[in-house]
Order: sequence, then C-alpha cells, then structure tokens
Amino acid sequence: MYYVNQNIKDVVRIFPPQNRYGYLRLDMNENPEGLPQQFVDEVLEEFTPEYLATYPEPDVFIQKYAAFVKVKPENICITNGSDAAIRYAFEVFAEKGSSVVTVTPSFEMYGVNCNMLGLVHKPVPYSSDFTISIDRIIEAIDDTTDIIVLLNPNNPIGPNFTLEEVTRVISKANQVGAVVIFDEAYHYFCKSSFLDLIEKYDNVLIFRTFSKLFSLAGCRLGMVISNTTIIEYLRKARPSFEVNALALKFGEKIIDHPEIFDALIKTAELGRSYLLNSLEKNHYEYYPQSGNFIFIKPHIDSNMLACRLMNNKILVKTYGNDLLKDYIRINTGSVKVMEQFMNALLEADR
Amino acid sequence: MYYVNQNIKDVVRIFPPQNRYGYLRLDMNENPEGLPQQFVDEVLEEFTPEYLATYPEPDVFIQKYAAFVKVKPENICITNGSDAAIRYAFEVFAEKGSSVVTVTPSFEMYGVNCNMLGLVHKPVPYSSDFTISIDRIIEAIDDTTDIIVLLNPNNPIGPNFTLEEVTRVISKANQVGAVVIFDEAYHYFCKSSFLDLIEKYDNVLIFRTFSKLFSLAGCRLGMVISNTTIIEYLRKARPSFEVNALALKFGEKIIDHPEIFDALIKTAELGRSYLLNSLEKNHYEYYPQSGNFIFIKPHIDSNMLACRLMNNKILVKTYGNDLLKDYIRINTGSVKVMEQFMNALLEADR
Repeated sequence: MYYVNQNIKDVVRIFPPQNRYGYLRLDMNENPEGLPQQFVDEVLEEFTPEYLATYPEPDVFIQKYAAFVKVKPENICITNGSDAAIRYAFEVFAEKGSSVVTVTPSFEMYGVNCNMLGLVHKPVPYSSDFTISIDRIIEAIDDTTDIIVLLNPNNPIGPNFTLEEVTRVISKANQVGAVVIFDEAYHYFCKSSFLDLIEKYDNVLIFRTFSKLFSLAGCRLGMVISNTTIIEYLRKARPSFEVNALALKFGEKIIDHPEIFDALIKTAELGRSYLLNSLEKNHYEYYPQSGNFIFIKPHIDSNMLACRLMNNKILVKTYGNDLLKDYIRINTGSVKVMEQFMNALLEADR
Repeated sequence: MYYVNQNIKDVVRIFPPQNRYGYLRLDMNENPEGLPQQFVDEVLEEFTPEYLATYPEPDVFIQKYAAFVKVKPENICITNGSDAAIRYAFEVFAEKGSSVVTVTPSFEMYGVNCNMLGLVHKPVPYSSDFTISIDRIIEAIDDTTDIIVLLNPNNPIGPNFTLEEVTRVISKANQVGAVVIFDEAYHYFCKSSFLDLIEKYDNVLIFRTFSKLFSLAGCRLGMVISNTTIIEYLRKARPSFEVNALALKFGEKIIDHPEIFDALIKTAELGRSYLLNSLEKNHYEYYPQSGNFIFIKPHIDSNMLACRLMNNKILVKTYGNDLLKDYIRINTGSVKVMEQFMNALLEADR
C-alpha cells in the first residue's frame, strides 16, 4: 500500500457552504454588494483572450501595492488568498511538532493548518465579556512555540490589541525564537495596524487580503508584508504561478482608483452607523466588533432566527460554542443592505 | 532566532519571465491567441460585482467537468493550476526522505517540489534520439520510492508511453508501495490518455489543466482525477478556497460550449500541419513532439536566433542542457500565428 501523510489522513475538514449566490450574504464577512458596476466593467475590458491565455505576471501589481502601503516591493509576497499565506508561513516557520499560539475563537483555518502540518495548536480563550488577557497569551508562549498568530482585529470577537500589548508578545516571541503573524484582514474597517513593526523587529509578518473591504473574495488575492528576509523565504515556498491574472488586474485597478477605495470605506461606515442606531432604537443587545461584523443577541433562539432569515433569503452566522451560541454574527453592508436586514430581523425575531 | 525550514531555505528557485504581453508568445506552451473574443465577452457578463465579492463555489464546475471526462464528481480535485496539484500530491503521498522518480528533461517544478519538501529526486534521462527506456525507469523505482511521475506526453521531449509500458510501471509501483502520477497537460493535442486506469489500479493519479488547449493559463485551473480515496486525501490537504470564481466560470462555460472545444482542437491541428509543411519545405531538421510544441534545429546558434526573434517580438524557448542546446522549442498556434513565426524564422536564421 502507498504512503499517506498521517496528519492529512487524520485532519477533519469542514468545507465552506455553497449555493450562496442569490442570498443576501451576511455570514462570511464579504461585501454583500461588491464593487461599483461601472468600475467592474472597466476592469473587465482588460480581460482580452490573450490576457487570459498568458501565465500571470505579478510584478506590476506588487509594485503598485507596495507604493499603496508604503513599503518596498521586496517586502511583499502575494498569495492565492490569505488561506495560502497561512499555509506557506506555517510550512516555512514552524518545525513539525512545534506549537502555534493563537486565540480562540478565531479564524478556524489556523487550527486546521496546525493539524494538517503536524503542529501543536495552543489556543488561548477569550472571556465571556469578549476580552482576552494578554498575560495569558504570553504565558502560552514557550520554548516549543514557533509561531504566534494574532488577528488585529480578531474575528469573530475581540477589540484591537494595543501597541504595548503586541510589543510584549513580540518580545516574548524573540526570547523563544518564534515569529508573530498579525492577520489584518479587517484592517480597513478599523484603521489599526502593526505594519510599522515589520522593520523594527525581524520576526513580524502582516497578512492582508482583498476579500473583505476590497470586495474580491471570489478572486483570491492575499498578501504577506514583512522584512525582505522573511518575504524571500515565503516566495521560495510558493508554486510558480500563485495568484491568477484576473485578481492581479482587479488589484491594480483598485489601487489606480483611490476614489473607489474611499467610497468603499464611506459605504461601510454609513451602513454600520445605520445598523448600530437601529439596533439601539430597537433595544437590542449587541457587540460591535472592530471589523465589518457585529454580534446581535436575538430574542429567540439564534439558530431558529438564522433559519427564518434564510427562508427570507438572508444568510447570517451562528456558533456552536458556549461563548457565542446565543448570538448571531452579521457582516455589515451599505445602508440599503442594513435596512433590508433590520426589516427582516424585526419580522423574524419574535 | 526563529526557525526556518531548511529545505525551503536551500531551494533554488527560478521565477518565470515577465513582460511577455505584447509579444507573440511561443515559449511557454500557452495558446498565443486565446479563446474566441465573442465567447470571452459572453463569460465576462457573468462577472457581476456580487459574483466577484463572493467566496468561490466549485461544485457546479466539478459536476460539469466530471460529466465532461466521464467520471464522478468524487473523482475530481481541482487546484490552483497543476502547480498546486503537484504540491499537494507530494505532500500527501511522499514521506520526507523518500524518493520521487521522474524523467529528465521534464517539467522542472517536479524537481523543485522534491527539493522544497525534502524528497530525493531521481530523474531518468532521455537519450539523444529523444527516446527513453522504460526498463531504466522501472530500475529507478525501489523501496525508497513513494511517487513516480510520467508526463504523457512528456514536456519538452518524448513520445507517448504505451499502455504496456505504463502497466509495467504501475505494477512495479504497487510492489514498492508508490503512487503513479500521469501529468496529461498536453492530452488534448494527442488524444492519448491513461484516465481509464484510475479505477483499475488504486494508485494512479491523472493531472489535467485548463492552461494549454483551453487557453486559460492566466486563470489557474488544474485538476487531479483519481479514485475517491486519493481524491479525498487531496481535498483534505488543500486550503478552503483553492480555485478562484473567475476560473471556475470560464471552465463551466467552455464545457457548456463543445463547439469552442472543437474549434480549439481544429485550430491547433491546422496550425501544426501548416508549420510542419513549412519546415519540411524549407529543409529544417525538427522533432514534432506529441504536445502543442515542436523542436527545430536552426542553422545559427539557438540563443542567437532566440535573441533575434525576441527583437522581432517573438518569444521562443531555448535550453542549456547538452541534449537540447542546439534547438529552439516553440509551441504551435493558428495558421496565422505559424505564418508569422515562419516568416520571422526564415528572416532571422541566417
């Protein structure tokens, strides 16, 4: 019989839901409406038969993106979504059998990648008031630790970490010989970033994505920003053709059009304000997180509510764990989308 | 200091060339002209802002593709190009320190992935007449072997393997506990396939791609076809969102339009015939391989010729190794493209 990697054999995978087109999608922190139609049409004009038939060329995008985030092109490694960035970073910077410290609940692929690669996952739990003790994170870091992952802001819960907090984490990581990943998928919804730390410390990686504010989850465009040594290792760990040419072109064009970026931010802010006001007015208990998502405590059972909303063509996220089982999580959208959601919520939640 | 995977640290990577747009691209076995404009326009209409903003859903494509190649959807694992298929297959089916038997010269990423993953690469060389001894391949397979890779047809040189030859390889693989990968990237240019063997043997994987005949190298769409056990392992080894939604839609639409497929085949055949006739007429020594590529022995130094053609906006492939250094390799295209190439060749090769 042929050899099969035991970690892959044993890993339990839950694949993402399908058939979501046509629903109002508030369950996966995408932008439910996407980019402006006129802008999309303009980009699509670039997709000539020759462009589609030619192997992707990432350099133009990387140069533009580097200027956009004010680093050098050599500080950037682009990946097939952050999904792939997690994989490569773990493969390069974690020795088999070493441990990876994260918080919990958090983005579940960090734990899954630990299992796939034979790493020991050490998740540090949030408290019932949705806060977490930085001391407990630091306690969890020991000589077995190769990687620490902090989402800034965390998904699904948690405020931003402070500079003082993360400095303590980086310092402990340095002591034990570990790298620190800051996953900033939701950065543009809250402004907070630790990007400046990539030059101050030699062991800091920042993950960003075009799936959230930039509304391109279908295209797969993620990136790691770090010092040139770390980036060179990551680039070596990737296949030859990592990000497709269509994602690259959309990425280039968004950067070429700062007014698109500004409009996306504005739309997100207005929709969020509208939602928070409506929830307040209707006496809902809610936790506005720093990303593009909010926890709401419904009057009825959360799964029952999710089911009713789904019948009304609206998707929301529920959780099985004790901390979150009484809530639904929704991502925000434009005022129009939030109106549609509030109307449906008030109708269904009784 | 933090841990760095020594295999990744040591691997030597040569990244693909860039700035190829605007050239007549005959160097990387793409379709230089791509899909029909009208068909592309029709597919692009499906790329709504919502579609781009939604995480990709692979199931519709997988069902259509399964019917297209006459297997079950459970026999298919789609990947971000064959590039990613190689990586996952090696990660799942090769234990660190085990060996991988391939032929040489062949697609270089097989060797690179061996180095990245700490596997021992055992390449079996072609002879100077572009043939290879199946006995020598079988001799190279031993108890350390976890994977054997055969391209059918091989790239850059080599005729198709016969059923009898591959049956011997599979049988030896079975004896030593190894899997056999048939990379059929160029299948549609020669019809030969070992797809039928996936049910007959438990250790056979077929790789296919949409980058060659299907003219979508920029989109990244590859697939593994195998028995359901192997496919389940591979699916577990991937990130959550592997293939982007744009590649999936193009894939779906090509399968929906068999006339596109037929036209691509016809165009390739006509262009190839035209080229072979022209080379014959002009007394060129050439080796027509089974894929969409041909070796031509120029009168002048091959690198000098490639340089002159590049100045004329035509890209061709040259090799450094002894076996191939006197040749250029070009991929074929339509009659129009082949006319353009022949005119440039006759002008430059003197």
